Amino acid sequence: MELEDMLMIPGPVQLHGRIIRAMARQMIGHRGKKFSEIMAFCVEGLKEIFGTEGEVYLISGSGTAGLEAAIASFSGVKRITCVDNGKFGDRLGRIASRYTETDVVRFEWGMPVEIEEVEKSLAEGSEALAFVHNETSTAMLNPAKELAKLAKEYDCMVIMDAITSAGGDYVKMDEWGVDVAIVGSQKCLGIPPGLAAVAVSNEDVWEHYNDKCPFYLDLSAYRKKAKDNQTPYTPAVSLFFALEEAVKMIREEGLENRINRHRTLAKAVREWAKEAELELFPKPNEISDYSNTVTAIKLPDGVTDKDLRGTLLKEYGITVSGGQERLKGKIFRIGNMGNVGKREIIATLAAIEDVLGRFNACKHGLPAAFEVLRDLL
Amino acid sequence: MELEDMLMIPGPVQLHGRIIRAMARQMIGHRGKKFSEIMAFCVEGLKEIFGTEGEVYLISGSGTAGLEAAIASFSGVKRITCVDNGKFGDRLGRIASRYTETDVVRFEWGMPVEIEEVEKSLAEGSEALAFVHNETSTAMLNPAKELAKLAKEYDCMVIMDAITSAGGDYVKMDEWGVDVAIVGSQKCLGIPPGLAAVAVSNEDVWEHYNDKCPFYLDLSAYRKKAKDNQTPYTPAVSLFFALEEAVKMIREEGLENRINRHRTLAKAVREWAKEAELELFPKPNEISDYSNTVTAIKLPDGVTDKDLRGTLLKEYGITVSGGQERLKGKIFRIGNMGNVGKREIIATLAAIEDVLGRFNACKHGLPAAFEVLRDLL
Repeated sequence: MELEDMLMIPGPVQLHGRIIRAMARQMIGHRGKKFSEIMAFCVEGLKEIFGTEGEVYLISGSGTAGLEAAIASFSGVKRITCVDNGKFGDRLGRIASRYTETDVVRFEWGMPVEIEEVEKSLAEGSEALAFVHNETSTAMLNPAKELAKLAKEYDCMVIMDAITSAGGDYVKMDEWGVDVAIVGSQKCLGIPPGLAAVAVSNEDVWEHYNDKCPFYLDLSAYRKKAKDNQTPYTPAVSLFFALEEAVKMIREEGLENRINRHRTLAKAVREWAKEAELELFPKPNEISDYSNTVTAIKLPDGVTDKDLRGTLLKEYGITVSGGQERLKGKIFRIGNMGNVGKREIIATLAAIEDVLGRFNACKHGLPAAFEVLRDLL
Repeated sequence: MELEDMLMIPGPVQLHGRIIRAMARQMIGHRGKKFSEIMAFCVEGLKEIFGTEGEVYLISGSGTAGLEAAIASFSGVKRITCVDNGKFGDRLGRIASRYTETDVVRFEWGMPVEIEEVEKSLAEGSEALAFVHNETSTAMLNPAKELAKLAKEYDCMVIMDAITSAGGDYVKMDEWGVDVAIVGSQKCLGIPPGLAAVAVSNEDVWEHYNDKCPFYLDLSAYRKKAKDNQTPYTPAVSLFFALEEAVKMIREEGLENRINRHRTLAKAVREWAKEAELELFPKPNEISDYSNTVTAIKLPDGVTDKDLRGTLLKEYGITVSGGQERLKGKIFRIGNMGNVGKREIIATLAAIEDVLGRFNACKHGLPAAFEVLRDLL
């Protein structure tokens, strides 16, 4: 008997004991004063995390539910441009095309967004732009600020999937000009899956409201109830208990410190990979970057997914992620979202060194990680 | 300082300590073997609860999310008839009309479904019938068997909202000829809100599949992943821990005993009401019945909602529900879903006697409840 397996994946994340304990309590009614107080507190915290003075709606469901709520509710646009340079970018187009004319600007997965290509699509008559901020499938940080700026030049509404960035990296909706953004509970917020938050930074986007959107995902119903700090349908109350505690923890740590922790942990993984002579998968250009919440590394030649991930789980009880869809068997991904710290990172990197070392597929890179981690007190 | 407030509402329900403890554990990955084992166990338990040999899909979201998934995914019908004799019947029509031609057969809230009226609508070319089994807003049990039989005569698909009946009252999809049914987690299953299960009893309904349904609520994606006991989008894992424990508890009690417990508790409330000279709100006819999971009672003249419910909460820490929408201020509702027992029922009835007694609005009815409850060992 050992401790539970350790999750070093890009969500759901390992839980802090405080989060587990916060959920371990008796149910309360969702129409009562206590629930409304919790919800009001969560919304205030999320507004800081999203960098907006606007409104935040809480939907019980996965991040994808939040994403579809955003896209469908504001699909009263003639045409939407979706940026795809990974699995979650691809998903934007799959959702949007159910509601309005959709143009998907595709880049090879792992390659950066080229702003000129997006501009071409916008110029063809789009009224909205949707993109993924932190593309988890390839571990690429897309150029949110530049894309939002471009969209504004074409008077387009901006919808940003911040599911795996908000709470772990900078998200500044109001400053960047992002109209709608989404976060998932089980990522950088550090709580279990089952909640999504949709932030709407300004009133103007409601001109694009489409009343043909799904009933459950109709943001106008959430907006109406939000005035009383309630939800239109019974919410996942236990996860609100968890979110309340998460917001407290984020405030105690300080959002800036939290972002710095995520950035430093991811940097340590990248510096380790370089030193270990492993190849990072994504190829950012001058306006994009490596993700600060997940790192994708190419599987060395001669090492299968099972060789690496199977052995890590079996021998060390550590779960890292594999590649998704077309990237299956080609990459592995190490998440550093939520409340993980230096200890979990070095355990993971050391275990990978052991396993890959058996294939002579990896050098000793840990000292490079130690050096970066020293910046994190 | 006292114990937490007691929830005697038709969901979310008071939690058993075992359910709370089941959730108090470290997160696991949703793509791993452990999660699939839990999901397989839950699905087997739910099939018994739904009375079907078919398939069960688990959606992270409220009961309404499950309902919309069912209606939207199978909205490839020319026309659907929705039965409305309460708030949740009304909701069926609001959802269905977003996807296909919808005819809503309306009855006064609290009045029974008249089968002839439904037949008239079906005869006008409907290919599907949707109705609420247990109408929570009025505490009426609608005639599921008769409605399903009628629908089959017109070769119509049958969608049944069993959100507040399954697990607490008889639901026999295969026997009755119900094609699709939905249950919510926070009702008779006795766990927190945030999960919905959709049961599909046979393959034939897929001929009505509509690929224009919402992405997140597209049952074809859940069906595909169900083969590996997985979900298409990250599920609310903590609630699966709770559901696993709930299925264990339901098996220990025995489904038949559990249904008998719900039926006896509701009967005790009704007999008490009669003896106390309070008026039950719904008016069932020969083929419908009073609900066995919630009881609706008219507020006596001269007693406001605040007088009763406000005082119950303030003085006794007991929450009962009020009326919804057009029934606001006219009725109050006592839920007996999930894992409540005799003790909670008599505490609630006694407290109501105290409060209504101050208005001379209630006789001493408790002995009538004691007598019914004696059947429950």
